[in-house]
Amino acid sequence: MENPKQSIFLPYLWLVWSDDLLSQNELNVLQQFISSREWLSQSQQKMLLGMIAPTSPPSRQTLAEWKSIVHAVLETKPKIRSLFGLALELSQNNADVKKQKNEFLQLENALGILGEEALRTFKSPENTLTQNHHTVHQFDVTKMTALLDGKQAPIINRVKQLLQRPAFKYVAENDTDAYREKVFQWCKILAKEKLGSMAYPTKYGGGGNIADYFAIMETLSYHDLSLVIKFGVQFGLWGMSVQLLGTEKHHKKYLAAIGSLRLPGCFAMTETHHGSNVKGLETTATYNHQKQVFVIHTPNPNAQKEYIGNAAKHGKMATVFAQLIIDGKSYGVGAFIVPLRDENGVVLKGITIGDCGPKMGLNGVDNGTIRFSKVVIPKENMLDRFASINDKGEFESPIPSDNRRFFTMLGTLVGGRIGIPRSALAAAKSGLTIAIRYGDRRRQFGPDGGSEVPILNYRIHQRRLLPRLANAYALHFGLQYLTQRYIGRKETEMQEIEALAAGMKAYATWSTRNTLQECREACGGKGYLSENRIGSLKNDTEIYTTFEGDNTVLMQLVAKSRLAEFRKEFAQMDAAQMVSFVIDKAKIAISERNPIAKRNTDEAHLIDFAFHRQAFEYREKVILESAAKRLKRLIDDGMDAYDAFNVAQHQMIAVAEAYLERVVLEQFQHQISQTKDKKLKAVLEKLCQLFALSLLEKHNGWYLEENYMEAAKTKAIRKMVGQLCWEIRPHAVPLVEAFAIPERCLAAPIAFDENKSFGD
Amino acid sequence: MENPKQSIFLPYLWLVWSDDLLSQNELNVLQQFISSREWLSQSQQKMLLGMIAPTSPPSRQTLAEWKSIVHAVLETKPKIRSLFGLALELSQNNADVKKQKNEFLQLENALGILGEEALRTFKSPENTLTQNHHTVHQFDVTKMTALLDGKQAPIINRVKQLLQRPAFKYVAENDTDAYREKVFQWCKILAKEKLGSMAYPTKYGGGGNIADYFAIMETLSYHDLSLVIKFGVQFGLWGMSVQLLGTEKHHKKYLAAIGSLRLPGCFAMTETHHGSNVKGLETTATYNHQKQVFVIHTPNPNAQKEYIGNAAKHGKMATVFAQLIIDGKSYGVGAFIVPLRDENGVVLKGITIGDCGPKMGLNGVDNGTIRFSKVVIPKENMLDRFASINDKGEFESPIPSDNRRFFTMLGTLVGGRIGIPRSALAAAKSGLTIAIRYGDRRRQFGPDGGSEVPILNYRIHQRRLLPRLANAYALHFGLQYLTQRYIGRKETEMQEIEALAAGMKAYATWSTRNTLQECREACGGKGYLSENRIGSLKNDTEIYTTFEGDNTVLMQLVAKSRLAEFRKEFAQMDAAQMVSFVIDKAKIAISERNPIAKRNTDEAHLIDFAFHRQAFEYREKVILESAAKRLKRLIDDGMDAYDAFNVAQHQMIAVAEAYLERVVLEQFQHQISQTKDKKLKAVLEKLCQLFALSLLEKHNGWYLEENYMEAAKTKAIRKMVGQLCWEIRPHAVPLVEAFAIPERCLAAPIAFDENKSFGD
Repeated sequence: MENPKQSIFLPYLWLVWSDDLLSQNELNVLQQFISSREWLSQSQQKMLLGMIAPTSPPSRQTLAEWKSIVHAVLETKPKIRSLFGLALELSQNNADVKKQKNEFLQLENALGILGEEALRTFKSPENTLTQNHHTVHQFDVTKMTALLDGKQAPIINRVKQLLQRPAFKYVAENDTDAYREKVFQWCKILAKEKLGSMAYPTKYGGGGNIADYFAIMETLSYHDLSLVIKFGVQFGLWGMSVQLLGTEKHHKKYLAAIGSLRLPGCFAMTETHHGSNVKGLETTATYNHQKQVFVIHTPNPNAQKEYIGNAAKHGKMATVFAQLIIDGKSYGVGAFIVPLRDENGVVLKGITIGDCGPKMGLNGVDNGTIRFSKVVIPKENMLDRFASINDKGEFESPIPSDNRRFFTMLGTLVGGRIGIPRSALAAAKSGLTIAIRYGDRRRQFGPDGGSEVPILNYRIHQRRLLPRLANAYALHFGLQYLTQRYIGRKETEMQEIEALAAGMKAYATWSTRNTLQECREACGGKGYLSENRIGSLKNDTEIYTTFEGDNTVLMQLVAKSRLAEFRKEFAQMDAAQMVSFVIDKAKIAISERNPIAKRNTDEAHLIDFAFHRQAFEYREKVILESAAKRLKRLIDDGMDAYDAFNVAQHQMIAVAEAYLERVVLEQFQHQISQTKDKKLKAVLEKLCQLFALSLLEKHNGWYLEENYMEAAKTKAIRKMVGQLCWEIRPHAVPLVEAFAIPERCLAAPIAFDENKSFGD
Repeated sequence: MENPKQSIFLPYLWLVWSDDLLSQNELNVLQQFISSREWLSQSQQKMLLGMIAPTSPPSRQTLAEWKSIVHAVLETKPKIRSLFGLALELSQNNADVKKQKNEFLQLENALGILGEEALRTFKSPENTLTQNHHTVHQFDVTKMTALLDGKQAPIINRVKQLLQRPAFKYVAENDTDAYREKVFQWCKILAKEKLGSMAYPTKYGGGGNIADYFAIMETLSYHDLSLVIKFGVQFGLWGMSVQLLGTEKHHKKYLAAIGSLRLPGCFAMTETHHGSNVKGLETTATYNHQKQVFVIHTPNPNAQKEYIGNAAKHGKMATVFAQLIIDGKSYGVGAFIVPLRDENGVVLKGITIGDCGPKMGLNGVDNGTIRFSKVVIPKENMLDRFASINDKGEFESPIPSDNRRFFTMLGTLVGGRIGIPRSALAAAKSGLTIAIRYGDRRRQFGPDGGSEVPILNYRIHQRRLLPRLANAYALHFGLQYLTQRYIGRKETEMQEIEALAAGMKAYATWSTRNTLQECREACGGKGYLSENRIGSLKNDTEIYTTFEGDNTVLMQLVAKSRLAEFRKEFAQMDAAQMVSFVIDKAKIAISERNPIAKRNTDEAHLIDFAFHRQAFEYREKVILESAAKRLKRLIDDGMDAYDAFNVAQHQMIAVAEAYLERVVLEQFQHQISQTKDKKLKAVLEKLCQLFALSLLEKHNGWYLEENYMEAAKTKAIRKMVGQLCWEIRPHAVPLVEAFAIPERCLAAPIAFDENKSFGD
């Protein structure tokens, strides 16, 4: 095609014939356009129309020639930036063509072509920003690990060493019997290493170190979650119930045997018909004063104990929760040690044990059902720290209310609500390590003709994974805080700590659910293969949102505790304080809700820690206050309080969530303020900003509703989230390396260079 | 305590000692309060203080007596509505006490007591709204089923009948070999019943009925999802690739054998290093003109075919996608029939097959890897509908562009993107049926002293499940529409339908993921047990978001197609139309964005179909337009188009989502407008309102940012979502019954009355 006037159509012709998104319709558009160009001769038009006749497409060879002509022109004139500019060049700057810029642009639109994008297909591959992004090592990974591990580094490293032993090699999960036995064997090794009894008093052979105990559970979570749960059932639930609900006689008799795993046991609380509402459980413990015994009994099939770990196979005893009956009167729920199996593992008379059978995950744990048929146990088997029966056969307790006594008992067991979220977070860290390492190496798509790009360079991939990474770091510090609060607890703080633990358990396990879901999808088909472990991580932690308290129920508890605190705070003010409270609120209105702050989109402001903290605190405060007001209004309007709480249930979840998010942000910021190393500090700051802003983005509707921010600001926040993701991406791999998960535990082939093996 | 002045403290004393949320601190508050009441004598004060001394708690018996005194008073004066009112009554309307209402209210607050709520604990259990809500049967379930099944009712019922056969009894999923064989046997039964070949031309023994084929896949999804996928691989992917990419010689030779399952086969497209970007796959098919053969070869380990269904065990042949090479030149991707195993199932020379091993789900499907070492196949094995090699050994194709030819080939296979979302929806329906039936019967908690309440009566439980139910109904009609569009397709509509199918596949499979997650959590521990099937449903469908096109990639495709359409629409306007376009937009501004509409919170308006449609259309239009503008701006500012698309990726997902949501809403509303039965119509209207409003609630931030709604309206929408959930709750069970999932398939024990068996 030597005539330059015709040549100008080459790019369009090529695009029409090649683009997979263009349809036959476009040919008609182009036909019409050509036919109406008066500066083309009849024969030129005819020739061009022939080139786009649907009945006689150009040959593959011709199409390639067109492209190479266009390509050659672009090579000599690299500055051409539009399709029309290209056409003009091909026309050798023909004056007729020059005049028709608008018409050509309209043609491009009519063909659905974005000119600049289309131009790219004719160019040699360029270096794009997207292609050039990659991992850099800017901070010292081992220092970050040290910061995360803190004082527990020695025990963490000891457990990691232990997990290197050949005995801890993974086993196939689908042979349930073998898997359960293996997990039991693993527990025995840990017991032998005195890790199981780490939290028990030293005088009963324990380590007397609760902080180390939690670190052990967390570190074991990098290996196998069935192991963690089995370990937690034996040494945590079973052992701790004896330690914390029993008295010295029980400690002497049982603790050493439990810690060494000579006495495997269960924590038998949940029943088929009473899970969340454990106060209503129906198993009975009837006292017989004459014989000095209790009779443990399951009054109906739905009062059977269910989901009890260690029950189906290995448990020899159980702490059984049951309604205490004395002389035909109920005294609320108590706890009793009940033997289940004899020395040889044979189930005892009166006990019927069922197997819960296959589960979504945690199949290395032998969950079972237990029914009691008038099982007799000696009086001394009552765990009698909070309630006992005196020599006259009368009930005695320092806590007169059955309700309160029961919740005091439960309160002592709050440790489980620290171990579980820490285990959940460890699982999320494993998933993130696998998915981020894979995303850094896996390449797919790329600019036309250019090399393929690591999928972690795609903005949407970053947006899926990096806020989850920021969340993991945030929760790490949040859970460290919870642990410290628990260890250093005073009696007067217990209610606050219980609520915090309940809330963090819910928040962290839901976070893990969300994180692992993104990780699975981010790894595509590879993420679906069992060998890459995301499936197990997901399925094993799936139940974390349910056990140790259903998350939704726990969040309601947290909200109720926040409401009670709110009422107290408000009530304890005298008149002067009231005034200053109102002024405080007015100050907030001035400093936070002033027109300038509401629409401040300066980058420095958007990433400012103080702005984040204020916004989180504001949300927490306002949501709490409005929930309190709404409940009061509903009740004042004559609604039953029970119904009113039901109506406000959705809001209650928000109350708890806002509280937890504020606490976690506060701890993350606090940690950063304590960090000396500048490079660590710099990357942690970015993560913390991403954590805060991605939550502000999530709640943008709320902030707009409250007129705390204007649209310009919420939009700027959205943009900033994207920008922070892009800026953190080069550090993403080092940030997961800092979790220092043993490669042997990580195991997933996609987490490693293809030709590298990771141990045996 | 006979002195009425002292009696007034009984409720407070009882609450302090019994409430599990009150701490020691509260005792101090009460102490102080008592000490400073001047109308109490010294001795009265002393006595009261004794009753709250932490060192000498009241006995359990005393506590019970206090409560019964208070209770008795309330029984005689049921109209008392506050704790102070109660105290006053106990004081026998003492004048001193009467004056101190405010002080008492402040005390309540200081104790963190919500008086009205606390009062409840002294009353006899009342009938609350929450307790009394229950299932009603208002519409004819069988009519709803008929409406859902439509013209496919006969084939659906036939498949359901078939699934009743003893042969279709579920098998344990953890014995992989046995499970795979069982699934294969099931496929054989279906083939024998001529269900597999339902979509093939009658002249090759098929049923010639594509609508029935989709209905079969959907109905089988109630049974076992491995079966559905195995069935889809054999009859859909393998069979349809032969039918749609091959020509008559292939049809004659293979179709009957494929339809009868005499010839099990695979669809070998995905490679380890090329999944989403299949255009870049590396397997080669090198033509040898002299020998009239192709040589199929895997050039490197990462070019192996991976995740190929039917490969690991049963496949005898495969449609293999490979780069066609003629005389050392690449001609893009073509499709070739390659034998894998001989008659006896022995793998042929040059073929290496691996097993993908255990997966998160779908373990009844034998996914494998395939490597080819210079495997020779005859020339005729090229599926040559879109490209062929002539007698001179030259490449020939009616589609000159390699890219376009490949996407045309893929386009013919779009049926998979209809079968998968329909199967996903069926899985969601199973999950909803199980969770909603369980929620209707499972009781937990309740007002103090009252009976426990079905958990589906809890607002938060409704909010988790009922919008998902509405979503399932909406998607049902959306997918029916997609199916009809596909069956009645014209050439010119293909691109639109391909984009719609890609989008609906992504939207529906993500919906299923979200629905099943809620269902699992809503069923608590029971939901974790394999016997209740939610685990399998979740894990089997987990990969639906990845296969047949990764959802994120598909959503980008949809968005690109919408952007191209947008450009065309805009371009095809002449000057006059441009003006009217601008006026149209101004009209929208007037009618939709006027101050009254923006803050209209009338119930009638909020549930108005026209309001919903307009809001959805507005969102779709504005998001599309702003994405187009943003891309243009980035490129105009000098950014490479490839990078610009990366920056806007997040927005692209929103473009696709807004489009799909509008389509689905439109179809749901359309279906309702066609529904004659008033009772069906009434409940469908509510579901459709819930579907629309829960999405408006989800996107509230966007509508506020765009100033399309004001805060009063978004808040009113949130409230209305809650209200609609409450109103739909009584119909929830009938609405899932209408899915008419065979009980034998549903199987989950928790979906049935405890003492009812559901077949053998």
